[in-house]
Amino acid sequence: MTAASDRARLPIGVFDSGVGGLTVLRAIHELLPDEQLLYLGDTARLPYGTKSPESVQRYALHAADFMVRRGIKLLVVACNTASAVALEILQQRLAPIPVIGVVEPGAAAAVALSGRHHYLVLATEATTQRRAYTQAIRNIDTSAYVEELPCSLLVALAEEGWHVGAVAEAVANQYLHGIAQRAVAERPDVAILGCTHFPLLVGPVSRALGPDIQIVDSATTTAAAVKVALEQSGLKAPPTDGRERVTLIATDGAARFARVGSAFMGREFRPEDIEVTDIHPSDSR
Amino acid sequence: MTAASDRARLPIGVFDSGVGGLTVLRAIHELLPDEQLLYLGDTARLPYGTKSPESVQRYALHAADFMVRRGIKLLVVACNTASAVALEILQQRLAPIPVIGVVEPGAAAAVALSGRHHYLVLATEATTQRRAYTQAIRNIDTSAYVEELPCSLLVALAEEGWHVGAVAEAVANQYLHGIAQRAVAERPDVAILGCTHFPLLVGPVSRALGPDIQIVDSATTTAAAVKVALEQSGLKAPPTDGRERVTLIATDGAARFARVGSAFMGREFRPEDIEVTDIHPSDSR
Repeated sequence: MTAASDRARLPIGVFDSGVGGLTVLRAIHELLPDEQLLYLGDTARLPYGTKSPESVQRYALHAADFMVRRGIKLLVVACNTASAVALEILQQRLAPIPVIGVVEPGAAAAVALSGRHHYLVLATEATTQRRAYTQAIRNIDTSAYVEELPCSLLVALAEEGWHVGAVAEAVANQYLHGIAQRAVAERPDVAILGCTHFPLLVGPVSRALGPDIQIVDSATTTAAAVKVALEQSGLKAPPTDGRERVTLIATDGAARFARVGSAFMGREFRPEDIEVTDIHPSDSR
Repeated sequence: MTAASDRARLPIGVFDSGVGGLTVLRAIHELLPDEQLLYLGDTARLPYGTKSPESVQRYALHAADFMVRRGIKLLVVACNTASAVALEILQQRLAPIPVIGVVEPGAAAAVALSGRHHYLVLATEATTQRRAYTQAIRNIDTSAYVEELPCSLLVALAEEGWHVGAVAEAVANQYLHGIAQRAVAERPDVAILGCTHFPLLVGPVSRALGPDIQIVDSATTTAAAVKVALEQSGLKAPPTDGRERVTLIATDGAARFARVGSAFMGREFRPEDIEVTDIHPSDSR
């Protein structure tokens, strides 16, 4: 057995600040059912979206070091905030293990869809401040015009499980009515859901934006990028043996993780299914 | 000069997970204008309300140790979640420095107002799970019937600055319409705002509850409890010399702290007014 085929049997690591990245985990699981997946939600520190870049970078490095100690062949940063502020330092730290964020795949999908080069990015405060999507889009569409809009409350709505109903519609409208009321030529033609929590609110968001604006989420496009990277590096897992392929780890609160995470993952799981680990050992003194 | 009069010149420490405790700081400042106040918002770890009791206890001990190193004569735990899960261990750790939480004063004020012994507590998930208000109320009203209702989204609303408007009304209604629609005899007659963020939403909450339910917040009652404790222990500060009496410290994000906190404090302050300190030194490695 070669070292490469040993590595191919290692899991793909998927890291997020909480349960939101389970939308990405789910998309990878559906596209690559033979892969083992190791998910880490840093629930003791969430949300990242309102923290400073320095703090998010520190947390992301802790999480990545933990994943490497557990053994992974590739790391997916399934958190837009961490992708926006920490992707490069993670790539440097983990080399030669490939590190894939959610921003570039989402940007690429948006550019493929856009006819008028006018983009809207809905994300957390930290992500929009960094303007990571603007940069990623302009890298591949030099005539792009990008608007970034922080929508922090959508995170809390998704966490509360209020994906539908009067409150979700009111919140989406509050953020987006100004854009929806513009003349068509002034409106973006593609909107990116630049936070892993937002796919759960795609209904209220698309109704608030109106039918002319196409919506992209990063989960499916990131899964495709993972598949390409595995193939390029010869790291695809051998055909499955039927064992359960998903390990879920949280840094705090298994009960809440199970309850809220089930909606994101699209299947029910129990608190006993989640391993709770302190990835910041210095923190527990 | 005696040791007691030296201690009387030390600041009162006020500790919260973020900016919410500024409502308590403001009430203390108004009632006791001669006192120096040292405020610590653990913004690197917020929110506490969705974290496990063990994590909240650990964070609260870190914060209290930091305050003691800076020098305080009394500690106010201006966070309902930390008061609910960590007050006793903080009192043990800091003795003989008095430690005052927000739960007991809020409970006492509610009991004083209630005629029908039927109470409603609006709080975070962590606070309601611990049922600290139920216990505190029953300690002084043995025939009390207490309902505790988690309202996590109100925290996010207050942080977003959406204190008024259609979204705030819709969220308050979503949580409270079931209670408001009951027959009067089945309704509580006093509601406690058991989270320091909620006083900013007293308008939408009181409209959703209707005119028959009186609302208590812990800020003013906690300030009164602080005054009594200072008098009892001979620790009241000497008359003011006109210097600024408030020092603000956060563990992350001065810009956001200033922007969001100004609404809670009831006066404008700038990022330069806030000292950002890492109170978890092991965390920054």
